[in-house]
Amino acid sequence: MIYFQCDYTEGAHPLIMQKLMDTNLEQSPGYGYDKYCESARAKIRAACSLPDADVYFISGGTQTNLIAIGSMLRPYESVISAVEGHIACHEVGAIEATGHKVTAIVSDDGKISAQQVREICADFETSPDHDFMVKPGMVYISYPTESGTLYTKRELMDLRAVCTEYDIPLYIDGARLGYGLMSPKSDITLPELAALCDMFYIGGTKCGAYIGEALVINNPKYKACYRNFIKQRGGVLAKGRLMGIQFDTLFTDGLYFDICKNAVAQALRIRKAFEDAGVTIWGTSYTNQQFPILTKAQLEKFEGKFAYEFWGKLDEERTVVRFCTCWATKDENVDALIEVIKML
Amino acid sequence: MIYFQCDYTEGAHPLIMQKLMDTNLEQSPGYGYDKYCESARAKIRAACSLPDADVYFISGGTQTNLIAIGSMLRPYESVISAVEGHIACHEVGAIEATGHKVTAIVSDDGKISAQQVREICADFETSPDHDFMVKPGMVYISYPTESGTLYTKRELMDLRAVCTEYDIPLYIDGARLGYGLMSPKSDITLPELAALCDMFYIGGTKCGAYIGEALVINNPKYKACYRNFIKQRGGVLAKGRLMGIQFDTLFTDGLYFDICKNAVAQALRIRKAFEDAGVTIWGTSYTNQQFPILTKAQLEKFEGKFAYEFWGKLDEERTVVRFCTCWATKDENVDALIEVIKML
Amino acid sequence: MIYFQCDYTEGAHPLIMQKLMDTNLEQSPGYGYDKYCESARAKIRAACSLPDADVYFISGGTQTNLIAIGSMLRPYESVISAVEGHIACHEVGAIEATGHKVTAIVSDDGKISAQQVREICADFETSPDHDFMVKPGMVYISYPTESGTLYTKRELMDLRAVCTEYDIPLYIDGARLGYGLMSPKSDITLPELAALCDMFYIGGTKCGAYIGEALVINNPKYKACYRNFIKQRGGVLAKGRLMGIQFDTLFTDGLYFDICKNAVAQALRIRKAFEDAGVTIWGTSYTNQQFPILTKAQLEKFEGKFAYEFWGKLDEERTVVRFCTCWATKDENVDALIEVIKML
Amino acid sequence: MIYFQCDYTEGAHPLIMQKLMDTNLEQSPGYGYDKYCESARAKIRAACSLPDADVYFISGGTQTNLIAIGSMLRPYESVISAVEGHIACHEVGAIEATGHKVTAIVSDDGKISAQQVREICADFETSPDHDFMVKPGMVYISYPTESGTLYTKRELMDLRAVCTEYDIPLYIDGARLGYGLMSPKSDITLPELAALCDMFYIGGTKCGAYIGEALVINNPKYKACYRNFIKQRGGVLAKGRLMGIQFDTLFTDGLYFDICKNAVAQALRIRKAFEDAGVTIWGTSYTNQQFPILTKAQLEKFEGKFAYEFWGKLDEERTVVRFCTCWATKDENVDALIEVIKML
Repeated sequence: MIYFQCDYTEGAHPLIMQKLMDTNLEQSPGYGYDKYCESARAKIRAACSLPDADVYFISGGTQTNLIAIGSMLRPYESVISAVEGHIACHEVGAIEATGHKVTAIVSDDGKISAQQVREICADFETSPDHDFMVKPGMVYISYPTESGTLYTKRELMDLRAVCTEYDIPLYIDGARLGYGLMSPKSDITLPELAALCDMFYIGGTKCGAYIGEALVINNPKYKACYRNFIKQRGGVLAKGRLMGIQFDTLFTDGLYFDICKNAVAQALRIRKAFEDAGVTIWGTSYTNQQFPILTKAQLEKFEGKFAYEFWGKLDEERTVVRFCTCWATKDENVDALIEVIKML
Repeated sequence: MIYFQCDYTEGAHPLIMQKLMDTNLEQSPGYGYDKYCESARAKIRAACSLPDADVYFISGGTQTNLIAIGSMLRPYESVISAVEGHIACHEVGAIEATGHKVTAIVSDDGKISAQQVREICADFETSPDHDFMVKPGMVYISYPTESGTLYTKRELMDLRAVCTEYDIPLYIDGARLGYGLMSPKSDITLPELAALCDMFYIGGTKCGAYIGEALVINNPKYKACYRNFIKQRGGVLAKGRLMGIQFDTLFTDGLYFDICKNAVAQALRIRKAFEDAGVTIWGTSYTNQQFPILTKAQLEKFEGKFAYEFWGKLDEERTVVRFCTCWATKDENVDALIEVIKML
Repeated sequence: MIYFQCDYTEGAHPLIMQKLMDTNLEQSPGYGYDKYCESARAKIRAACSLPDADVYFISGGTQTNLIAIGSMLRPYESVISAVEGHIACHEVGAIEATGHKVTAIVSDDGKISAQQVREICADFETSPDHDFMVKPGMVYISYPTESGTLYTKRELMDLRAVCTEYDIPLYIDGARLGYGLMSPKSDITLPELAALCDMFYIGGTKCGAYIGEALVINNPKYKACYRNFIKQRGGVLAKGRLMGIQFDTLFTDGLYFDICKNAVAQALRIRKAFEDAGVTIWGTSYTNQQFPILTKAQLEKFEGKFAYEFWGKLDEERTVVRFCTCWATKDENVDALIEVIKML
Repeated sequence: MIYFQCDYTEGAHPLIMQKLMDTNLEQSPGYGYDKYCESARAKIRAACSLPDADVYFISGGTQTNLIAIGSMLRPYESVISAVEGHIACHEVGAIEATGHKVTAIVSDDGKISAQQVREICADFETSPDHDFMVKPGMVYISYPTESGTLYTKRELMDLRAVCTEYDIPLYIDGARLGYGLMSPKSDITLPELAALCDMFYIGGTKCGAYIGEALVINNPKYKACYRNFIKQRGGVLAKGRLMGIQFDTLFTDGLYFDICKNAVAQALRIRKAFEDAGVTIWGTSYTNQQFPILTKAQLEKFEGKFAYEFWGKLDEERTVVRFCTCWATKDENVDALIEVIKML
């Protein structure tokens, strides 16, 4: 069985594993104070063109989200998110468990618009029920979204503008950031994206690392006592270098971007194969996730050979499924998959 | 510089690293559903003689504690702990952040007694202020304690008895469990200890793993929806096998116990060297942590060569410091340290 | 200006005020242990035909909701509510502040159906994303709803059945319970309703009292340490008798039901007047709240004389507004209002 | 039986009751927007010489404390309190339930010193374990303390100074504020005390009102969206005027101060009677609470006639008990009590 089900099926990029082996018996200080973490932080600051940003490594996306969001909201504030946002549906109410409502916006393609944010903020300010409503306190978006769509630079600038207008922070969940930035449809660079955010994270787990996300704090307002806050939420690893070494490797010689670019290229090969076979593709993902719409008969063709993820039923006959590539996807596996697709 | 400062200075045991390398490009399901996690769980159940226990792997001790404790308490309940307990002083109020008070008991040696627990529980039940007091809802102890002391089997049985008497769970923080069980002063086995707890965790991070603690749930009352609960607190790793592989290796052929035993032996060599040099040892740790009481002049002898941890000032002249060994401590480093100690 | 804006414009029923005066200088124990609270509890148990229920008096609806819901949910559970439910929109995220998500169901008339609940519960149980989803942990409904609609006995029994099927509690927010039960469209009695719930509250603030809601705990599973829990949330009044005296009076000789019945009758006089004047009524409220749909020109007729509440814009021209009656509504004020309505 | 057990045995001051009666059928806006609340707020601002302060009325002390403290702390911060502080021992962990640790300081007389606060703050800033410790984020004191002691103006100024030094707010729990300010041992006025605090509350429940505390926000930094925050914690009463009328009455013509002064005078008569009878008084309370140390034989003299509160056992023979007066304490009852005391 070859897995195209998700983008966390393998371990870490071989260069990371090698570095972990090479340094394994070195002694280093704990809790992220080691030289690998320091080096990784410097490289990430450089890659983001944010020389003053604070950078922390946290073990997973849900934990990064609950820490970041909890650090920016006042108790009576909510976070605005698309209904499809990871925090709104697939984190077991992790944000609510820290005391905050997720104000979910209905969206066709997983993206929310500046206009939608403006309406929610304006409604709060002008409603006669103002005193009884939760205050919209920040905006959460994913880049790319959970369904692989991408905000344009213009859309991100508009979101930034409405956040500035209402004095609330903008946060980007970058679990698959590399796969978004390296999409041929992306019109924004990492420094441009970074400059628009108050805080965001660069996903490692799905983009070459075994574990780890790099939380980047751009707005100095949120920097105080951040180590304490992360520790309180259980997010500090004693052997912090495990993540430092990974991010240091990923941000050396552009490895992060190269492997993500390749994964997107593989995904687009799969997309083209489906299109050539006359299969309709759901949504508009030009990232590492592809969502063909398949009939039961077509799905049977993959059985026992290729694993995909069930995404949703369109109707009695047709199902949306997901095929993912990642940094570890092999040419020959994609070739083999395409052979099956050709026969649909 | 050679570090004896703490027990998380190196990476992971070489057998673990090898296994991570060997399996790196294998594809496996996420979130702890892979075969390595399954195997590790089976081996841990066997090592604990708890065939029906649930086992989860969580990335660090603070996170494991806040998840475990939060899963056992009702909102109006507190957790009883020694003042020196990790949750009481070194986790930035992580337990309080989940809504629960830590009822801290003063203790000379880091241990709390069944009698102390009984008094708190009885006080709650009989106080005229009963309605306004937080209910003592569980007991948290560390084995070994933060200062290296060990509960005897009798003491643990007494704690179990008082917990049963007041119908509250007993939880053991086993961050250094291996170093406790392998102490020559320990009179209890892992199955015996496991049977006395409602829940406990077997520390990996400090005992051979890069990251990971194994939370063992003995009492079926607390098992429901545990994956959801861990996910909500940000404790689920997408690539759960990272921890599965580590624990699977540690619990193969008794590796966990062997490496911990060796670390304790090294620590006791250091202890003996201090004693032979006429240095008083603070407390009664026969585990991997040793706490000599040293003068400024004595401390200077280690400068630039051996790192230790500051533990506390006894008076103007004397300081308690900590020397730790771990699974990775090398004979020659201990030899070199002992050479210095001899010259105190 | 005469206020029909809401149902909390006056103080308390004169019989309550008299009793408060008569007993004012009596000395009594605090915290709800006085004889008036005891008597009120007994009368409420009798009125509900729940001889074993626990009854607590809490100062307001939001506080009662957050206490009740927090006491029934496990940390990873959410409460199912209509989008229009008070907890979902007008309590500033009070439920989320206690750590729980509100799973909001879209509804036309403020009511949710057993079928909707079943779908949510079944989806959780069968979804491949089960581990990452919040567990639906209870059902919250309002009787009457925020827009004055009423569940039929059959609908309530169906909700009870689905709750039993999935082993989750059913909770009723009875902020306006009296106005619901006394509606000519109600087909259920207080004992029948009470028997279907695990917990519910009888609203005092809007139904004759100055402050206070009576929380009734039917299911013994939730009774433990309830005083502690209420105290922890700040819900215990030192002079608990303030609420005891009010509920004791309201539940003497059926006062609660009589005054609510009269308020509904006054509201239906207003409804009829609007209907006679050819005004369309929004929704189907046969309780103390009436929602005529009026044009700007029509609304001007009330200006400076009668206060109503803005409920929502239908289109450029037409607005839904709310006229409320309550236990204190005077015949002559309704007469005067009807005179204006006749001239629309 | 005559109760001297606590200071919340009667209802409200007769002038309050009269005003509640007189205004009962008036219609007024809800949620504290009525003219009585407005008037009360103006009078309190004037009494405090804080023309720009925000004032909110909240139903009880625990709720006021959890709202005030929660509004001033960041998630990783704790509140410093005396061990005897109400929030530390008699509020069922209400502060912890909002996510914050109470850092409790041992104290002989219920007071904490600026020096103790400085040590805790300095320890946090300089500790090598800084990242793992909760940050001391504010100071909570009671005036008078739970055992009736009073801070001097100098002590309060010192606390203010250390708070300013470490940039943390000072908050005063004034549940019995009137009884403190009116003590002959008090050397501070309400405006002087108010000016030293970032936030404090003026207790109503124990000082003449049926329910209600007036939270005064001096520091503008904490004013934003306060109504939303109070609502979220369940602290907003629909009929807010219930508290507005009470505080408006209490702060008219100095009623609050007059009745508290009288209560203290009555308490000091009781104190003198005990002293004259050779009874030792525990502590140094010159407020409305008196704590004689009595033998079992002496205590029997009060049986069936006068209720007091058990405060603590000194030894096998002697017990500390509490006698409270309040605004409602009658001359003749004190006379009768003194008759018994004379016979000890």
